[in-house]
Amino acid sequence: MSFQKIKGTLDYFGLQTKKRRYVESVARNICKLNNIEEIITPTIEYTDVFVRSSGDSSDIVTKEMYTFKDKGDRSITLRPEGTAGVCRAFLEEKLYVATGLKKYFYNGSMFRCERPQAGRYREFNQFGVEYYGEDSYLVDASVIILADSILKSLGLSNNYKVCVNTIGDFKSRMAYQEALRKYFSENIDSLCEDCKNRLNKNPLRILDCKVDKDSEVLKNAPKIVDYLTKEAKEYFDNLLKTLDYMNINYYVDNNLVRGLDYYTDTVFEFIACNDDSNESLNGLAILAGGKYSDLVKEFGGPSISGIGFAFGVERVISLMDKLNLFPESINDRIDYVVIGLDPNTKLYTLEICETLRKLGYSCEMDYKNCSFKPQFKLVDRVNPKYILIFGEEEVKENKVTIKNNDTKEQITLNIDEFIESLK
Amino acid sequence: MSFQKIKGTLDYFGLQTKKRRYVESVARNICKLNNIEEIITPTIEYTDVFVRSSGDSSDIVTKEMYTFKDKGDRSITLRPEGTAGVCRAFLEEKLYVATGLKKYFYNGSMFRCERPQAGRYREFNQFGVEYYGEDSYLVDASVIILADSILKSLGLSNNYKVCVNTIGDFKSRMAYQEALRKYFSENIDSLCEDCKNRLNKNPLRILDCKVDKDSEVLKNAPKIVDYLTKEAKEYFDNLLKTLDYMNINYYVDNNLVRGLDYYTDTVFEFIACNDDSNESLNGLAILAGGKYSDLVKEFGGPSISGIGFAFGVERVISLMDKLNLFPESINDRIDYVVIGLDPNTKLYTLEICETLRKLGYSCEMDYKNCSFKPQFKLVDRVNPKYILIFGEEEVKENKVTIKNNDTKEQITLNIDEFIESLK
Repeated sequence: MSFQKIKGTLDYFGLQTKKRRYVESVARNICKLNNIEEIITPTIEYTDVFVRSSGDSSDIVTKEMYTFKDKGDRSITLRPEGTAGVCRAFLEEKLYVATGLKKYFYNGSMFRCERPQAGRYREFNQFGVEYYGEDSYLVDASVIILADSILKSLGLSNNYKVCVNTIGDFKSRMAYQEALRKYFSENIDSLCEDCKNRLNKNPLRILDCKVDKDSEVLKNAPKIVDYLTKEAKEYFDNLLKTLDYMNINYYVDNNLVRGLDYYTDTVFEFIACNDDSNESLNGLAILAGGKYSDLVKEFGGPSISGIGFAFGVERVISLMDKLNLFPESINDRIDYVVIGLDPNTKLYTLEICETLRKLGYSCEMDYKNCSFKPQFKLVDRVNPKYILIFGEEEVKENKVTIKNNDTKEQITLNIDEFIESLK
Repeated sequence: MSFQKIKGTLDYFGLQTKKRRYVESVARNICKLNNIEEIITPTIEYTDVFVRSSGDSSDIVTKEMYTFKDKGDRSITLRPEGTAGVCRAFLEEKLYVATGLKKYFYNGSMFRCERPQAGRYREFNQFGVEYYGEDSYLVDASVIILADSILKSLGLSNNYKVCVNTIGDFKSRMAYQEALRKYFSENIDSLCEDCKNRLNKNPLRILDCKVDKDSEVLKNAPKIVDYLTKEAKEYFDNLLKTLDYMNINYYVDNNLVRGLDYYTDTVFEFIACNDDSNESLNGLAILAGGKYSDLVKEFGGPSISGIGFAFGVERVISLMDKLNLFPESINDRIDYVVIGLDPNTKLYTLEICETLRKLGYSCEMDYKNCSFKPQFKLVDRVNPKYILIFGEEEVKENKVTIKNNDTKEQITLNIDEFIESLK
């Protein structure tokens, strides 16, 4: 009998782990420079947390969640995205009582039981950021700048486009929804079955439809820009001016609405684009986010505005892979391989290894073999900077031979002198 | 309506996140010094992976797993421990084809739906290590030394005891099981209901019983040491000699069997112990592991021996908390708070912040307020090393006032000179 991982899940090992940790550490470092605190919320939440936040008509909630009953018959869900859990924690842990802007980042596994396909996994990793407590286009701009600077720090620059839009404040959105409902009702026959259902529940979702996205009806639909209140328009104009001032190269995409119910005003997506039109990631969002003025209140909390984004770690890795953006330095070498050539030296080499490690040097030894050949195979596999050799003579005379694995030069030293020189 | 986290799960924020990351980074660093590669396996696996490895009579499998059906009606489980998934990946990804010892560490969420109580959570974190491919008491010793050195590097030293035991090779175990079955059959009336069931399935489990653990019958049960084959005894003796040589302060506990089916020969637990007898963690295992000669084969792979351990990150954190072992340095300060005293300077301070961050300095600003008082509240909250002040005059004359937040000394410089000095 042999076992396999669940389709759409991944094992990370070797270079692949290093790539993932590299992406995460670059993003973490940018967050640190921005004074953003890390928050870690559970992988599992009561299902209501996601239904209430994403909206019960969203694709995620209706089709894509891993939901099950616990032994107390309460419905539990593997988180499909990060914002709802962070928002729940923000409220439950009373993090909102501090004054000013509160800034969090998170990094964890998300789960969606959709059909696995290129760039989509059932368990995948998101790195996300959420800001709470200040309702300002400057905050929105700084979040977009942050997202841009994470991707740029990873070496991505002309490989994505920054799409921004506004879906307006509550008043703008009501007027726009009304106009959309009217327009799509008149064109109902050209909509897919899912969109026909969306028409009454939330007509904005139709703009986000993966089936109808290229249809004429969608292209000619009313645009939010024509239904914005004066305040919403001014807010968006100020955001764009700030992005201009900060040299962010963005596009305004009036059809960008995002698939979740909780967004208000600013929404944005960073879309992968490459010259190579055969590129399977082309057109896929690698990072997406938006402002949510009402989510904290919706969760039973005070009226506090939030804005955030998340990027898919796997998508960023595969984009960087194709562009050869991972630095050589992710493959760090260990310092020493310790070789003992006498069956009686194994305990001794074990002790030497521990001594070196306590001094901060990484090392490896062969636990089994005492002859030259297999131990040099270990050297070949591990490629250390130096090799320490303990032959019969060295052990008898309390010495060690140190060989530089690049230059192949070697010297023999008294063992205590050698250890002393490392301190 | 207000939402709560699932009972037995945790939110990490503020200092708590820093403590967790500190524990993990110390353990990661020790792994790096030991040339151990990181492996990341999925949070979810097909249920069989755990049933086959832990044994279908283990407490974990019978009572404590979060198991549910996916949309294709296959049984899926949130991993209750790390070894089974790593072993599945080791086989499926053909990691065994490399020669020599293969060394992995992992760090992730585990799930058990037991009743939450002191030191036990439904979602908790384990840091674990697995070595594959060499069957040697030296490997076993080096794994125990590694575990010891992780806990010592965290500052724990007289706060745990290292308990080791052998449960023998296959032959020893068969003889011992037979003796146990005979002994407990004769004393069946004094066993708890669960243990009565364990008697036929796996009498070793009775030694691990949480209910019967202090009973005379258990204390007087046959000891494995009397049923070991010559080879198993020699292996264990050599292990103990190696631990002696390496100055590991251990106890041999003949009742230590571990609750999982897959162990053979060496098993060990690091048990929390403090002088304070009221200590709630006293007697709880903070780290546990053992050798498993047959698990890889059981999974359908070649006959490759493995050994590993895992420690509970939450338990280590609470032990360190009580002993005040977290260093001050986990609270790192940011470099700059940038203050603009004119409504028109907000774009400018945003730009300054981005410039500083690109140079590797962490900084923060107030996005809303332009007067002195609220911006100095931000300084108080964040406690940066320096404060940059842009008043009306500074902006007009292209200058900046830099204030040392500790000495309160301040100087005014030309902005370009200041930026240049940072490079």
